[in-house]
Amino acid sequence: MFEQLMQLPLFHGVSAQQLSALVEKMPFHFLKFNDGERIIDEGDTCTHVRFVVSGKVRVSMRFTNLKVTIEQTLEAPNVLGPDYLFGLDTTYPFYVTAEGECGIMQLRKSDYVNIVQADKVFLFNILNYLSRNSQRFTAGVLAMKQGSVTERIALIVSILTTQLSSDITISFLQKDLCTLLGTQRTTLIHALDILKDEGIIDYTTTQITILNLSALRNRS
Amino acid sequence: MFEQLMQLPLFHGVSAQQLSALVEKMPFHFLKFNDGERIIDEGDTCTHVRFVVSGKVRVSMRFTNLKVTIEQTLEAPNVLGPDYLFGLDTTYPFYVTAEGECGIMQLRKSDYVNIVQADKVFLFNILNYLSRNSQRFTAGVLAMKQGSVTERIALIVSILTTQLSSDITISFLQKDLCTLLGTQRTTLIHALDILKDEGIIDYTTTQITILNLSALRNRS
Repeated sequence: MFEQLMQLPLFHGVSAQQLSALVEKMPFHFLKFNDGERIIDEGDTCTHVRFVVSGKVRVSMRFTNLKVTIEQTLEAPNVLGPDYLFGLDTTYPFYVTAEGECGIMQLRKSDYVNIVQADKVFLFNILNYLSRNSQRFTAGVLAMKQGSVTERIALIVSILTTQLSSDITISFLQKDLCTLLGTQRTTLIHALDILKDEGIIDYTTTQITILNLSALRNRS
Repeated sequence: MFEQLMQLPLFHGVSAQQLSALVEKMPFHFLKFNDGERIIDEGDTCTHVRFVVSGKVRVSMRFTNLKVTIEQTLEAPNVLGPDYLFGLDTTYPFYVTAEGECGIMQLRKSDYVNIVQADKVFLFNILNYLSRNSQRFTAGVLAMKQGSVTERIALIVSILTTQLSSDITISFLQKDLCTLLGTQRTTLIHALDILKDEGIIDYTTTQITILNLSALRNRS
């Protein structure tokens, strides 16, 4: 497990031995969830840093005013919304469900802060992680060049998903997706058809599946 | 000056005495710039945390592929791009120019990291600051409801400006602004006219001035 966790940005530069020693010393909790069980509810306060250590979870985010939901799968090793530990709003804007059996390792925020303060490697990891988010949103906007429906989809997906996610889907009421993207139904379908032909997405009347996120970003 | 600096998010909860002691102890540098002088160039590496301690500066960000530039004024007390100290890309995506005489106080990144590590107040401040950025982008996207030109302008401005900025302008080649917003000239002008009538913006053929950013966000 520690070999796996070392791949995570928050544990970058930390050895498996160090991680193992840390887990022995600090009050980490290990939780098991069955398929379909809710792990985090929308609006829950983020009180712990939570890692997916086995299996995978599905993260779902809903638009407030429109029937549009974006979902992504996070496979182990992964981390759940570390950008909600601090800041103005520490409630998760998404809900998380187990996909099959999965294991979560969690640590209280105060204990995590102690680790971060005690060791510069952990400090740099969280500062890098949070800064990177902000930087990629700015860079994404500054790189816009077409204002196309495709570009708008790519921007929204980039902002609402993490870089270690897979199997991203957008479920929608067609009328609401058109509203969100500020486009007419025919323009939307035309754009989706092109993306489907290029193997970048697949879609039905109620759902878009992103098959190749980096191609979507470059294509836009 | 310390009374003023205490207002900044990075110094939240730090007393004027503590700040004064810190500035005596650590190798802070104080720099003076004349009107129009360049303080930071686009592409400069962020090696220091930099504060505007007197006067004001103009921050300009250019789109890579389109002739569109967004500018904002940061008055003292303020901080310059702390989200570029860490992360994947530590080069500033903007340039900064003095507006009138202005004073900058700066500290090397390594010294700032030592402060952050030594004192939980500073640690929480930077973690909160960075997390808040990420949270407000996500919240901004999830709150979209119209996909209108106005909403697109508001989202772009929100992502590219900080919360302590004033006098935000967007300079553009009209063709390129239409491309960026994915709209026709007539639709753009119609949207801008409504916003102008409501006192939210002013505009000419080459520039939009945001008069009321929070109204723009709510209006969209």
